[in-house]
Amino acid sequence: MRLRIDLSYDGTDFRGWATQPGLRTVQGTLEAALATVLRVPGARVVCAGRTDTGVHARGQVVHLDLPDDTDEAAYDERLRRRLNGILPPDVRVRRVAPADDGFDARFSAVWRRYAYRVADRPELVDPLTRGHVLAWQRPLDLDAVNAACEPLLGLQDFASFCKQREGATTVRTLLDLAWSRDEAGVAVATVRADAFCHHMVRSLVGCLLAVGDGRRAPGWAGEVLAAAVRDPAVAVAPAHGLTLEEVGYPADVAGLVEQAARARSRRETT
Amino acid sequence: MRLRIDLSYDGTDFRGWATQPGLRTVQGTLEAALATVLRVPGARVVCAGRTDTGVHARGQVVHLDLPDDTDEAAYDERLRRRLNGILPPDVRVRRVAPADDGFDARFSAVWRRYAYRVADRPELVDPLTRGHVLAWQRPLDLDAVNAACEPLLGLQDFASFCKQREGATTVRTLLDLAWSRDEAGVAVATVRADAFCHHMVRSLVGCLLAVGDGRRAPGWAGEVLAAAVRDPAVAVAPAHGLTLEEVGYPADVAGLVEQAARARSRRETT
Repeated sequence: MRLRIDLSYDGTDFRGWATQPGLRTVQGTLEAALATVLRVPGARVVCAGRTDTGVHARGQVVHLDLPDDTDEAAYDERLRRRLNGILPPDVRVRRVAPADDGFDARFSAVWRRYAYRVADRPELVDPLTRGHVLAWQRPLDLDAVNAACEPLLGLQDFASFCKQREGATTVRTLLDLAWSRDEAGVAVATVRADAFCHHMVRSLVGCLLAVGDGRRAPGWAGEVLAAAVRDPAVAVAPAHGLTLEEVGYPADVAGLVEQAARARSRRETT
Repeated sequence: MRLRIDLSYDGTDFRGWATQPGLRTVQGTLEAALATVLRVPGARVVCAGRTDTGVHARGQVVHLDLPDDTDEAAYDERLRRRLNGILPPDVRVRRVAPADDGFDARFSAVWRRYAYRVADRPELVDPLTRGHVLAWQRPLDLDAVNAACEPLLGLQDFASFCKQREGATTVRTLLDLAWSRDEAGVAVATVRADAFCHHMVRSLVGCLLAVGDGRRAPGWAGEVLAAAVRDPAVAVAPAHGLTLEEVGYPADVAGLVEQAARARSRRETT
């Protein structure tokens, strides 16, 4: 019996997603609430996107395995309410439901979509959203930024934008990378890929901010990518501007199973 | 020499607008910053809308009088930067400029516009906006709410929705009162009037929430108004859902002066 849980959190006061002894993390907080409500000590969840310290989520997805004799009917609206009743206000469960057959929050995911928000003019800096919008001192030219984004799209080796991990591939498929302005005028980057390596979104944003405020030409982003080595001139953008917005899954069981097998083998062979 | 300052603040950690000894207030915080930056001890500002404890602002306007020999050229972008450099992050100055002739932040204002935000479904409750959006357990029927709003519009005695103050009028002109949903689906009340008496917006919202979630019929709001006495069945909605969004002023000097004279005489004769 597997449960799917969709949740949101304000990353400000968490030391990231993953449980760490003695630190307040989202995973640790959620697992403690699940253990209490479900009376399952040692409940362990698996998430779609492990967010760093200070990164937020509106569309995080996790799964949790429960004993097979668990009554599915119990895991509905009431469970959501009970979880939200004991979770702190900076984590909210949006939805709880028995997972589809073959569903794996991490391996079935076909893409993750992040948003990075930047207030690049003084009048856009809003104290009410300061926790998840980066205040930037110089105005951004989004036409230049979007020109810089183009060569980064598609299947590429993102080694230049990743914190290297021994034996881990840095090849990813970047499906969307585009900037626009929301109703208020805040610059929003939409970044969607099959998966991301560590610090990848924030490094891409750091590179593009340098293009946007005129310190670098639009062609620079493609040059950094082509070099395929970490460039110290690329700053990692601050964590608090970044939010995991949505995780995409195949619509049917066959797709879920197939994607999980594909993702698992890719992680294991690289 | 009069200065106009436009500012935003997150009301969460303030004991409202007005200076109070020993308490952290927006006025006190702003005046301390102005005194430091302008080297004017005892700087006193006048605001368009005195917000209660916990109420936010995106469009608060104040004025500040300075000695006549002050060099106007000094009060530009640099002053804004210096103020924001020493103000805490929950208050931001959006704009500083010499005020137009005849401008008075309080008396020249022709209207104040507030927004009240409500997340009325579990999936709308967003930890990132929990500081300025009320989480409401029951879904709101905005058609019913908007029907309830209609009889409240126009020039009326809002005694039923105001915390009475000795000798103060409760007659106001309600210019807009309408609910809609924003992009995310959050219910947003737009409330605009020439001026508001104490607790008026939050009492209107409290009344309309009862209509929206079905506890009261739409006609109830008009009945409460007609009674012209405070109805204990009307709850004052929580402060944190409320934001002062914008203050309207006449476009020209004649309008500014005329409106100030009109508003002053109204306050003095009632």
